[in-house]
Amino acid sequence: MRAARYYGKEDIRVEEVEEPTVKEGWIKIKPAFVGICGTGGPNFAPVNPHPVTKETLPITFGHEFSGTITSLGSGVTNFKVGQKVSIQATIYDTTCFACHDGLENICYNGGFVGLSGWGGGLSDAVCVPANYVLPLPENIPLDIAALVEPLAVGWHAVSRSPLKSDSTVLILGGGPIGIAVIKALRARGCGKIIVSEISGSRQKFSLHFGANIILDPRKDDVAARAKGETGGEGVDIVFDCAGVASGLKSACQSIKPRGTVVNIAIWEREVPFLPNDLVFKEGSYVTSMGYIQQDFKDVIQAIGSGVMKPGDMITAKIALEDVVERGFMELIHSKENHVKILVQI
Amino acid sequence: MRAARYYGKEDIRVEEVEEPTVKEGWIKIKPAFVGICGTGGPNFAPVNPHPVTKETLPITFGHEFSGTITSLGSGVTNFKVGQKVSIQATIYDTTCFACHDGLENICYNGGFVGLSGWGGGLSDAVCVPANYVLPLPENIPLDIAALVEPLAVGWHAVSRSPLKSDSTVLILGGGPIGIAVIKALRARGCGKIIVSEISGSRQKFSLHFGANIILDPRKDDVAARAKGETGGEGVDIVFDCAGVASGLKSACQSIKPRGTVVNIAIWEREVPFLPNDLVFKEGSYVTSMGYIQQDFKDVIQAIGSGVMKPGDMITAKIALEDVVERGFMELIHSKENHVKILVQI
Repeated sequence: MRAARYYGKEDIRVEEVEEPTVKEGWIKIKPAFVGICGTGGPNFAPVNPHPVTKETLPITFGHEFSGTITSLGSGVTNFKVGQKVSIQATIYDTTCFACHDGLENICYNGGFVGLSGWGGGLSDAVCVPANYVLPLPENIPLDIAALVEPLAVGWHAVSRSPLKSDSTVLILGGGPIGIAVIKALRARGCGKIIVSEISGSRQKFSLHFGANIILDPRKDDVAARAKGETGGEGVDIVFDCAGVASGLKSACQSIKPRGTVVNIAIWEREVPFLPNDLVFKEGSYVTSMGYIQQDFKDVIQAIGSGVMKPGDMITAKIALEDVVERGFMELIHSKENHVKILVQI
Repeated sequence: MRAARYYGKEDIRVEEVEEPTVKEGWIKIKPAFVGICGTGGPNFAPVNPHPVTKETLPITFGHEFSGTITSLGSGVTNFKVGQKVSIQATIYDTTCFACHDGLENICYNGGFVGLSGWGGGLSDAVCVPANYVLPLPENIPLDIAALVEPLAVGWHAVSRSPLKSDSTVLILGGGPIGIAVIKALRARGCGKIIVSEISGSRQKFSLHFGANIILDPRKDDVAARAKGETGGEGVDIVFDCAGVASGLKSACQSIKPRGTVVNIAIWEREVPFLPNDLVFKEGSYVTSMGYIQQDFKDVIQAIGSGVMKPGDMITAKIALEDVVERGFMELIHSKENHVKILVQI
């Protein structure tokens, strides 16, 4: 079967590989649509054997995907062949302290289907444990279902925040995760949304998806503007989807008394931090990592009920054969012109 | 009357000054006992006029104090002359966003009686607004009542934490604030308390006041030991009373999944911070600043009911005449041998 495999930075190859066979308690799926994510590979793909999958590079890619069940392993009774599903990509060991607390997203040995082994969406077939599979209601088409994974990242971050129906929010970074946060906020209800973003096209996307005010951190004093937009008080919540030192400082300075900074970014290195920026207003810095299964269920519910309409996040659809040239390379060299590129398998 | 006034770093003089007269809505107090705090002056004493008190150096010192009411300003009806009281030293403007939310501790123009103007405890008389004054039950003597202020700092920090009755706690720094945190934790109930402290005498104080395990950050790998003491999981809560870069890193690495670092320290400069130390376990960094009136009430209640017995925190009592030589100089040059030095007025 075909599979797009990651060999290392900017080295992805569509190859023929052996088709997997379904094990007891697992489900085999024919992927339908797969979102392309520009950042996962270098951060998560295992150079040394992954503790759960035991696999190492090359790794079949694709952790944001929907598909159709093609066969059930023995003992799987709550699904049926032909059923349309979304896949919660989080790999977890079920034994660590985090898993014990129901926090598979921060499993000590965690990973992702499509980044850490067990195959991935960018192939003709993938097998995953049955409890990684979420049934879709009839009214969610498979292309929309491929958006559930990135939307769950935003949904989880909002769940980690003290959001109220009138909260004013500042989002640092208007890329796909920033937009997932906007989508979750608009679905759940909030006050004004301010987005700080450099790219002109991402500024436009952010406005389109529900931001009220756009700031450019190269030109605007973000903290001063955040206070200006809140009568001088500061915002209730900042979501940091950018992960840069200047943003951390702006975030801490933009919140109101007892405000909260929620970090979603993965950071590359240590950055300067002045705790007093938080101390003198008793601010909090909360972190969010991936998603748990409840986030997947909530996003599927929000889309199925029409509260969340994420279809316009899809900015291109391409074929698996074009995934390198028109997928990853496009995303690397022109990422600000896209929210989500979907690969149709 | 006599007053110990702060002129600048390590420059405190006991002088004759004019006695204050009580205004409408204010209360005049004869201080009884005053705790000496080694850190407040350089951090808080106003070089430029304080926005609320309009005062600047020299400033009468003493923000941790008890006393007896000597006269009531017009309109004050809920106190009486001769009543024994503790004073909530927080100065606030009542008009800012923080005050509007009932958070006088993070008032935008905040300060402290005895650090920012309006006189202080280290004098023969001081006048404060009536709502800064807390009545004491008969069974709390005035020397113990002078400990309410520093104990309220620890109490407030514990209130800012997600403490449960079985929480394992790591405290960075066994100075007076660290000990106030221990006292609050023991009064409110918790699991194991681990203290990381360099000074041998402070290690002994920490053990005496209720710590179970002492670490020396010069010799011990604090995060590894914190995990070792919790079966590998990490502690529920870290209280950072030290405010040094290596401690911030240890704190973030010592918590369990979804654990919390509570910062009480005032920091002198930016320090390196790796958000990923928190991100991959969804940790939180929460800050605590001073206290609100409820903390004062809670501490007075805890002492009055016998739940908290802080008397052994008093390691010396001196006279106002000796405040420079035996008070501040002793605290500056031999601070690890004391928890609280009280000045008897």
